[in-house]
Amino acid sequence: MLLCDVGNTTYHFLDDEKDYKFCVKDFKPDTIKEKVFYICVNLDVKIKLQNLDNWIDLSKFVNMKNYYETMGIDRIFACEGVENKVVIDIGSAITVDIVKNSIFEGGFIYTGINAMQKTYENISPALSYSFNFELNLDKMPKNSVDAISYGYLKTLYVEVMSYNMEIVLTGGDASKFALIFRDAKVDKQLVFNGMKKIINKANIC
Amino acid sequence: MLLCDVGNTTYHFLDDEKDYKFCVKDFKPDTIKEKVFYICVNLDVKIKLQNLDNWIDLSKFVNMKNYYETMGIDRIFACEGVENKVVIDIGSAITVDIVKNSIFEGGFIYTGINAMQKTYENISPALSYSFNFELNLDKMPKNSVDAISYGYLKTLYVEVMSYNMEIVLTGGDASKFALIFRDAKVDKQLVFNGMKKIINKANIC
Repeated sequence: MLLCDVGNTTYHFLDDEKDYKFCVKDFKPDTIKEKVFYICVNLDVKIKLQNLDNWIDLSKFVNMKNYYETMGIDRIFACEGVENKVVIDIGSAITVDIVKNSIFEGGFIYTGINAMQKTYENISPALSYSFNFELNLDKMPKNSVDAISYGYLKTLYVEVMSYNMEIVLTGGDASKFALIFRDAKVDKQLVFNGMKKIINKANIC
Repeated sequence: MLLCDVGNTTYHFLDDEKDYKFCVKDFKPDTIKEKVFYICVNLDVKIKLQNLDNWIDLSKFVNMKNYYETMGIDRIFACEGVENKVVIDIGSAITVDIVKNSIFEGGFIYTGINAMQKTYENISPALSYSFNFELNLDKMPKNSVDAISYGYLKTLYVEVMSYNMEIVLTGGDASKFALIFRDAKVDKQLVFNGMKKIINKANIC
């Protein structure tokens, strides 16, 4: 079974256990002849894929009533992949979503590492540091690098920990945040798990 | 008594009860002949002021041992203005500092409103909203504008409230954050209060 999670810049495929990526700007989806189950956040690609009979858009098989209209489809499928968890998807943005008894209860959007580092840098060259992911979250900082790291990381940490739920981290920067959320599970294939669940539920394989 | 808090872009004066501002690029400090007690974060201006005998640099009269070397002098003076409080100074950056028994216990740096709105906008045009300062902080969002507002505001809120201390808000955007920190006091002259305290302590008036 071939799955594909199309982002703004890449086609991310999962072929049974093997995953690989192609650039959106180079890859031609009509070169694939077998059946592909996909989700897609890229509007231009979406239009292309709609004309290919072997590309099956999984977004049509999700019960959307618990989600909201402008919510990213990748975020929705990450939520479909769990039953009772806080899902933290860490990419250019960070999305934090609560799922209880397989129902999406709401979530929020924070900024990714690069975007936030650039923000501090733009405020002042004196704040141009890489974040310290090993800082002591129990101690108020007394130096610049920890002062911005704490501002970025501790505020997120204390909010998420207040839910008192199991945490799963996914997305490109998940491993870095595992240094902060030490009891969290890292699962980079969470979106694919959600896709598999929907395929089984809809019985379309 | 004439006080002046020199920022990166303005000279902010307090003449007894009246305060007013001049642009750094237009104002000539040697046009003032009376004694001025000042602090200054702007390096170019600092060099100019050092050559003027009637401009007294108050940073020399602070006991720096509780602060750290790269900490902004305006932030230090805001802390000097209180005895037991969380000081939140909201400008292009947000600084959150804890003062207990007149001792600085540490603090962190978060991003100001404009910087953070631009950051979300740069991540995706779909996140290009003004923050909702009236959102319900007790409810996980189910729409985009609240999802980014919650990400920016609730994370900061929950961290600050965990200190269980009185809060004072200062800086240009203090009033907006008074909608979030509802029991906080707004004091836009906190830095000047710190300056007055140091003048009294050093007996240099």
